[in-house]
Amino acid sequence: MTDTIKYLLPEERIPRAWYNIAADLPAPPPPLHPGTGQPIGPADLSAIFPMALIAQEVSAEREIEIPDPVREVYKLWRPAPLYRARRLEKALDTPARIFYKYEGVSPSGSHKPNTAVAQAFYNKEAGITKLSTETGAGQWGSSLAFAGQLFGIEVKVYMVKVSFNQKPYRRALMETYGATCIASPSTETNSGRAILDMDPDSPGSLGIAISEAVEVAATNPDTNYALGSVLNHVLIHQSVIGIEAIEQMEMAGHWPDVVIGCAGGGSNFAGIAFPFIGKRLREGKSVRVIAAEPAACPSLTRGEYAYDFGDTGHLTPLVKMHTLGSTFIPPAFHAGGLRYHGMAPMVSHLKELGLIEAKAVRQLPCFDAGVTFARAEGIVPAPESTHAVRVAFDEALRCKAEGKAETILFNLSGHGHFDMQAYTDYFAGKLEDRDYDEAKLRQALDELPKVAA
Amino acid sequence: MTDTIKYLLPEERIPRAWYNIAADLPAPPPPLHPGTGQPIGPADLSAIFPMALIAQEVSAEREIEIPDPVREVYKLWRPAPLYRARRLEKALDTPARIFYKYEGVSPSGSHKPNTAVAQAFYNKEAGITKLSTETGAGQWGSSLAFAGQLFGIEVKVYMVKVSFNQKPYRRALMETYGATCIASPSTETNSGRAILDMDPDSPGSLGIAISEAVEVAATNPDTNYALGSVLNHVLIHQSVIGIEAIEQMEMAGHWPDVVIGCAGGGSNFAGIAFPFIGKRLREGKSVRVIAAEPAACPSLTRGEYAYDFGDTGHLTPLVKMHTLGSTFIPPAFHAGGLRYHGMAPMVSHLKELGLIEAKAVRQLPCFDAGVTFARAEGIVPAPESTHAVRVAFDEALRCKAEGKAETILFNLSGHGHFDMQAYTDYFAGKLEDRDYDEAKLRQALDELPKVAA
Repeated sequence: MTDTIKYLLPEERIPRAWYNIAADLPAPPPPLHPGTGQPIGPADLSAIFPMALIAQEVSAEREIEIPDPVREVYKLWRPAPLYRARRLEKALDTPARIFYKYEGVSPSGSHKPNTAVAQAFYNKEAGITKLSTETGAGQWGSSLAFAGQLFGIEVKVYMVKVSFNQKPYRRALMETYGATCIASPSTETNSGRAILDMDPDSPGSLGIAISEAVEVAATNPDTNYALGSVLNHVLIHQSVIGIEAIEQMEMAGHWPDVVIGCAGGGSNFAGIAFPFIGKRLREGKSVRVIAAEPAACPSLTRGEYAYDFGDTGHLTPLVKMHTLGSTFIPPAFHAGGLRYHGMAPMVSHLKELGLIEAKAVRQLPCFDAGVTFARAEGIVPAPESTHAVRVAFDEALRCKAEGKAETILFNLSGHGHFDMQAYTDYFAGKLEDRDYDEAKLRQALDELPKVAA
Repeated sequence: MTDTIKYLLPEERIPRAWYNIAADLPAPPPPLHPGTGQPIGPADLSAIFPMALIAQEVSAEREIEIPDPVREVYKLWRPAPLYRARRLEKALDTPARIFYKYEGVSPSGSHKPNTAVAQAFYNKEAGITKLSTETGAGQWGSSLAFAGQLFGIEVKVYMVKVSFNQKPYRRALMETYGATCIASPSTETNSGRAILDMDPDSPGSLGIAISEAVEVAATNPDTNYALGSVLNHVLIHQSVIGIEAIEQMEMAGHWPDVVIGCAGGGSNFAGIAFPFIGKRLREGKSVRVIAAEPAACPSLTRGEYAYDFGDTGHLTPLVKMHTLGSTFIPPAFHAGGLRYHGMAPMVSHLKELGLIEAKAVRQLPCFDAGVTFARAEGIVPAPESTHAVRVAFDEALRCKAEGKAETILFNLSGHGHFDMQAYTDYFAGKLEDRDYDEAKLRQALDELPKVAA
């Protein structure tokens, strides 16, 4: 019996079309204009997005062709490998079969380039020469920097100031890829200046950085805005993960009983899960799907399903999603990519439809699982990805208790090479599980915008 | 015409045997016992190495079978991809065809696990339960930590104290893989205590760390020593790089005119180069081979070919190699993996035989090339690897000047995710090209041990 089983697809099996789950579902509630309260149209978005992406955002087509230049760039690292985690199964002494799809093989080390490359391509086609965006921990900013460089687009990244100062290496990666990285709040935008007037020492937040990036795009005709999660077109681009995984699981001869992804904004979770859910919806194949979210920022398990803003500056449309409130500030923890108050509207829609489960997990058990995984399989997971690892462990241990040989598949969305401070803190005993403030959550939920049903 | 061309081999094409270039060459000068001045025998090495590795060290067999358990672990990341760098060719506007073999896909991010896994396996087979080693920048230490974990061997790494303090993330990676990492000089060994008695604030050196690791192995029956470069058996294990690359270049339909690797101790250089040189020796295929070394530590271009110690503590056998003298201290620069006073005896032997060229390059032009490479191909090279990138650039620009469409192949030995401080310094204009001290080099060469010819 072999210890290492890796399922590799040949290059020509990079998907030729993305999967759009909207084709297989009742329509979700539409985004609303924050001023009028009416559903927004393409014109409302055209100041900051190219029409091709707006069309994908509202598309009901099941398959959306992947342009050749995007597939060309995907070839740098795709198809991504899928592994059977045989050594991990032994370490956990479980009868379960554990598989993981590994997206850390991309140049920036996560799944984010799957959409960054597509967004850079469509913007280039539309004659756009500059893109602005925000980043927290830096996974998204570095991915867009990489994609922009390949398509000759200047990328400006507003990075949350506290991360800008604490994570100089992600910033260096963005600069290596030719992007400009600016600490947010900055003096470059009205949004940033307004915050600095009130608090010159503001550490910034993802909400503030989004406001800055959107403002720059809205006020400069040559500049568009790019978002790394939440929106439908982003989730559609990430479907390459699950489409490849379905083919690789067929190679393995096992259909998963459980599919798991970590969920912050929801993009890597949707990427692995939606193609499997599509098979369930169209072909009746049964599969449990679990979103693993941080207990300190539990939008799916503790948020309300309500219309809310995507940013704290309230520049974005109102979208119906599971949200902790746009004024909710989660406690500090190491998975910066999961510290977002809302969940992608389409993921939220599936939760309401009963098509997915959600489970909130604390960071210490996540790092425990991450270290066990690294010692068994060699790959050090990103702090975000350890949430998926943790839930996969829990399912594998359930299988052990129940004596069931179920098949578990999870998405390992990225490696932790840029996050070793978190592991250092973990080994030094400095990590703790901090709860969010229940009273502040109540307050943030009370402050949700009032929208007629 | 496609932009991305990646040559992937199926898993069953992981080599079944390593290549030993000693079979195709006149015998090199033997290692000598430092006490007697006589050639050493297997018994002299058996206190710190298992017999299987000692046998490989002196083997004249061309092919050495790779044990199945080692191939099983190789499957986690091998066969490693080989790319045609089409975007880089365009960026350099060169008629040359540029190919690179990428070894950064391993769990620790470099070529080092190719030998770490083999060494852990043979030690395990010999009943050894603990391995000691040294590490500078940390590439080797983290690779042995990974390999030891998989085979159930405890790994203790003596890390040069200045790196231990400056590079906490490599240390965290070793600990994630379950190894113990100790700042050297330490109070745990006679070698360490002797240094600390003289200088309690000693920043340490690779030579001191080697002395500590060797002492621990020599004085504990359950502990062996592992070295990440220089020795024949290490170079043999790295031959998987070149064996795969030959098959991939055949897929590409081009035999390389030039093969390039960076060279510190010589292991990744030998890994890519020796199998090609073997083809030249046995089949008359012409190929130029260039070792790219740092101008600040230029053993091949400025060292003497002489018997010298491998460590500063003079615990190792005397080996004939190109050396700057074991007391030579190179100036600080960012490619810690290339800061070694000597060159592998077998690489030195090939240099004397006229089978390879060597070129010394400075770190600023190396980082220039590394950034251009990252922007074209997406992968951020390790500082060590930028030396190979630089020489590949120089060859490509020569081809442009001469109007020649030559084929250039280089080894991209690792990624730079753990070395972003170097890129940060580069962008901040803080990097400089410091020369070594000519007078101190003279003095170190004058202090070479006197050995009868």
